[in-house]
Amino acid sequence: SRKHRIAVIPGDGIGKETTPEGLRVLDAAARRFGFELELTQYDWSCETYTQTGKMMPDDGMDRLKDSDSIFLGAVGWPGVPDHVSLWGLLIPIRRQFDQYVSLRPCKLLPGSKSPLANRGPEDIDFYVVRENTEGEYSSIGGKMFPGTDREFVSQQTVLTRIGCDRIMKYAFELAMTRKRKKVTSATKSNGITFTMPYWDERFAEMAKNYPEVTTDQFHIDILCAHFVQHPDWFDVVVGSNLFGDILSDLGPAVAGSIGIAASANINPEKTFPSMFEPVHGSAPDIAGKFIANPIGQIWSGAMMLEHLGEKDAADCIVQTIEKLLAEGGPRTRDMGGQAGTLDVGKAIAEAV
Amino acid sequence: SRKHRIAVIPGDGIGKETTPEGLRVLDAAARRFGFELELTQYDWSCETYTQTGKMMPDDGMDRLKDSDSIFLGAVGWPGVPDHVSLWGLLIPIRRQFDQYVSLRPCKLLPGSKSPLANRGPEDIDFYVVRENTEGEYSSIGGKMFPGTDREFVSQQTVLTRIGCDRIMKYAFELAMTRKRKKVTSATKSNGITFTMPYWDERFAEMAKNYPEVTTDQFHIDILCAHFVQHPDWFDVVVGSNLFGDILSDLGPAVAGSIGIAASANINPEKTFPSMFEPVHGSAPDIAGKFIANPIGQIWSGAMMLEHLGEKDAADCIVQTIEKLLAEGGPRTRDMGGQAGTLDVGKAIAEAV
Ligand SMILES: CC(C)[C@H](C(=O)O)[C@@H](O)C(=O)O
Ligand SMILES: CC(C)[C@H](C(=O)O)[C@@H](O)C(=O)O
Repeated sequence: SRKHRIAVIPGDGIGKETTPEGLRVLDAAARRFGFELELTQYDWSCETYTQTGKMMPDDGMDRLKDSDSIFLGAVGWPGVPDHVSLWGLLIPIRRQFDQYVSLRPCKLLPGSKSPLANRGPEDIDFYVVRENTEGEYSSIGGKMFPGTDREFVSQQTVLTRIGCDRIMKYAFELAMTRKRKKVTSATKSNGITFTMPYWDERFAEMAKNYPEVTTDQFHIDILCAHFVQHPDWFDVVVGSNLFGDILSDLGPAVAGSIGIAASANINPEKTFPSMFEPVHGSAPDIAGKFIANPIGQIWSGAMMLEHLGEKDAADCIVQTIEKLLAEGGPRTRDMGGQAGTLDVGKAIAEAV
Repeated sequence: SRKHRIAVIPGDGIGKETTPEGLRVLDAAARRFGFELELTQYDWSCETYTQTGKMMPDDGMDRLKDSDSIFLGAVGWPGVPDHVSLWGLLIPIRRQFDQYVSLRPCKLLPGSKSPLANRGPEDIDFYVVRENTEGEYSSIGGKMFPGTDREFVSQQTVLTRIGCDRIMKYAFELAMTRKRKKVTSATKSNGITFTMPYWDERFAEMAKNYPEVTTDQFHIDILCAHFVQHPDWFDVVVGSNLFGDILSDLGPAVAGSIGIAASANINPEKTFPSMFEPVHGSAPDIAGKFIANPIGQIWSGAMMLEHLGEKDAADCIVQTIEKLLAEGGPRTRDMGGQAGTLDVGKAIAEAV
């Protein structure tokens, strides 16, 4: 039978609570659809950092490299600075494994509630495709004249032709698989005048290869406004690392809950393993209470199965989530219910 | 009597339609509150650019310099590239006149409609304070290896100590005049690791001077989500040039209409004139039809009067707008009405 090797990193906070529910559902899907998951768990987290001084062992990346996919909970904990936790685990995986696509569905699920008035599932159903390796998250920068009135910091945004073209190609290919076949580009070429006009240029070039795809572009300021005012305009939205980051939190927010939002960090060529993680963070305020919504994690598991070629199993999980919510199944507090993390996980696993 | 010299630049598109309404209301306020406005009109726009090759004459900035304030409509028109129109008029005024504060109220007016479900005027009433001269909108950048696969562009974000401190000070001083006395900082120090941690550092430093002010900070991605999910959390929000730009379009969007959003580009020391303009642009799609909402322009006029020391007149205009909307006075299409630009302008002018 088909076997997939999965590296599991629950990480911090609610990541430790949602990951087991994700695995519970993956396991149910494996049994139903006849494949095997070989799991290797890693306890890498801020907790291990405070014990060992390291977010992951020196050969951490090597150990992950042989897996087919990485299933991650959440990284980050108060007291451990971001440059240690995120830049010691999350960001190196995204970069060194060249997971240049961050794919994040924004979907208003039936039975879930958008904060927007009069919006139903037919109005909000799009993907944010985020460039995941360069752009505003660069490693070039520094400080001058420290401690004086002339002190300043600077940081470069870097957009490469290779980086722009491959993420845009991914967005257009994704649009080709969808009914509306539309790609929207997030830009800010009217204000950020060296990098973003180049982004526009590459977008226009790529669009020429896809005559069937409709395109438009908005500056990020008004695009955020449109997400709120006209979420129904969007099908596939492509953005730089920062703009994609913003839009893929705003999208799930207008669609009702960040707790259900899933994300995939994909290396499309499969040279390296891809990583699947919920959009939410470690949520220290509710960690330890087992009240966190596991759907973001479970949905990320479905995205992982799709990437591993188990499309039927992936579809089944997503449909099960939709059905459960539509039919008033158990839901966590963020969705107006009273259920705990395990209740929701078990209900979905059983239904699968 | 008190006299204020105003440079008026209607600019492009609907700017030509809303500016006269702004002036109509300013004129009414002047008569009622006993001050004089000495207006000088400038036809600088994309239209003059296509005739003369210049957005403004060579001595344009000199001519503006002697005014007490600048009252602007909108700049930009299809066919004229942004680097000509915006960087030939709007941005030089903001920068050369060191208008380092962009102040933008986000307020749900009674009788106007938010796209959010179950949100009333008591829920949305905050200011976005945007740094307006440096940050992501920098003039340092370029391209390497053009035309090859190795092609890349880069642009520096620059944050200076002076730039951070003065905008943060402005935000804290503004919070001190308000009931809730709260400042929220927009950051992204977990991803943009050279500039944004410095922003956080300066914010923490400045906060020490204002023990009465409550503070918090969010990364820009989740902050945008919170604008939609919890607009009631905010009182004064301070952000860099780009983050402030994004938040000050998103804020008005959640508050109901970008057409009513006003903005001030302020040089607090009054070394140079400040500039007042609506948040909306030239809106080519509806220009020429006199259906644009003039309230953003009129409200910007009120902000101008406040800056000029005419606080009573400014309050009167804002209260008149609120009253008219609450009582079902004429409103333009973007607010669900049928009135034209002039109807709204006249109604407000008369009521003042
Ligand atoms: C036109 C553009 C350069 C401008 C900006 O980003 O500053 C506009 O969006 C604004 O907010 O005033
Ligand atoms: C934690 C942070 C660095 C990260 C990002 O900005 O990429 C997060 O916001 C995300 O979207 O995955």
